[in-house]
Amino acid sequence: MSQATRVPQEQRTRAMRARLLDATVELLVERGFAGTSTTLVSQRAGVSRGAQLHHFPAKNDLVVAAVEHITEARGQALKEAARTLPDGGRRTRQVLAMLADHVTSPVFTAALELWVAARTDEQLGAAVGPLEQHIGRELHRLTVELLGVDERKPGVRELVQATLDMVRGLGLADTISDDAARRERILDRWAEVLERELS
Amino acid sequence: MSQATRVPQEQRTRAMRARLLDATVELLVERGFAGTSTTLVSQRAGVSRGAQLHHFPAKNDLVVAAVEHITEARGQALKEAARTLPDGGRRTRQVLAMLADHVTSPVFTAALELWVAARTDEQLGAAVGPLEQHIGRELHRLTVELLGVDERKPGVRELVQATLDMVRGLGLADTISDDAARRERILDRWAEVLERELS
Repeated sequence: MSQATRVPQEQRTRAMRARLLDATVELLVERGFAGTSTTLVSQRAGVSRGAQLHHFPAKNDLVVAAVEHITEARGQALKEAARTLPDGGRRTRQVLAMLADHVTSPVFTAALELWVAARTDEQLGAAVGPLEQHIGRELHRLTVELLGVDERKPGVRELVQATLDMVRGLGLADTISDDAARRERILDRWAEVLERELS
Repeated sequence: MSQATRVPQEQRTRAMRARLLDATVELLVERGFAGTSTTLVSQRAGVSRGAQLHHFPAKNDLVVAAVEHITEARGQALKEAARTLPDGGRRTRQVLAMLADHVTSPVFTAALELWVAARTDEQLGAAVGPLEQHIGRELHRLTVELLGVDERKPGVRELVQATLDMVRGLGLADTISDDAARRERILDRWAEVLERELS
C-alpha cells in the first residue's frame, strides 16, 4: 500500500473512532449510563454496527474510552486556558473559576455516570479505577502549577486536595439543580481563604 | 374496631413499610439504581408483591421514600452523636469527622444512586429535587449549630457551604476507592483553617 492511500485510511479510522466516542459522551449526558446502548451510539455516530464492534467490542470498552478521550481533550483545553490567566490577586479566583467550569461541563457529568456505574460493576470498576486515579493526579498537578504553590511546604498538598474535593462537590450539586449563584459566592470565599493560607 | 386490635395492625404496617424501605436501601447500595427492582425488594423484605404495590405503586415511589426514610434516621443519629461532642479545640475536627462518617455511609451511597438516576429521569427528578433541598438545608442547619457559629457574620455561611461541598466531594471519592487515609489528612488541615477563619 502506498503512503498516499494508507494515510487517508488512518485518518478515516481516527475520525470514525472520534465520532463513536463523542456520541457515547453525548448519550451518557442525555440518558445516563443505563440508557446508553451500543446500538444508540452507532446510530448517532453514523457508524455501522460491524465497524463499531470491531473497535469497541463491548459497551464498557466504549464508555471507558469515551471518558478517557474527553478527559484528554478537556485537559488540553484547561492547559490552553491557563496561559491567559492573570497574575497577582485575581489569579486564585480565576483558577477556581476554571475548575468550576470543568466540574459543571459534560466531561464531569459523563465521568460521574461512569463512576457511579463502576461502583456496582466489577469489570467496569477495574477499568475506571486507574482512569479515575490518572485524571485525579493530572488535575491535582495542573492545579498546583496554576496556583504556583510549593507542595513541599506542610499543609499545601492537603489544601489543594480539599479544593479539588470541594469543587467536585459543587459539580455534584450542579447536576441536581442550577447552582450557579451559590457556587460563585462559595468560590469567592474559598479564594480569600486559599490566598491567606497559601501565601 | 377496638383500640386493642387497631394498634397492632398499625404496628405491623409500619414494620412492613420499614422492611421494604431498608431492603430498597440495601439493594441501591449493592446493585445500584438500575439493578434495583421492585421484585427484588419484595423478595428481600419478605413482603408479598400485592402488599408492596399497595404501599409503593412504582419503583420511583419506593426509592424516594427509602432515601427519605434513611435520611431521617441518619439525621436523628447525627443529632444524638452531636450531644457527646467535646467542647473547645477538638470540636471542629470532631464535627468534620461526623460529616465524613455521614458521606461514607450507605445513606450517602444510596442518595448518590438516586441523584444520578434523577438527572436523566424527569419524574424521579421532580421528587428528588425537593428531597435533596430539604436534606441539604437540614445538614447545613445542623453543621452551623454543631460548629457554634453565627451565620450573620460575613463569609460564615459560605464557609459552611464550602465545607459541606468538600465533604460531599470526599464522599464521592470514597465510592471509587478506599480513600480513608487521604481523607483524614484533608480533614485535619481543613479543621485548622476553619478554626482560624471562624474564630
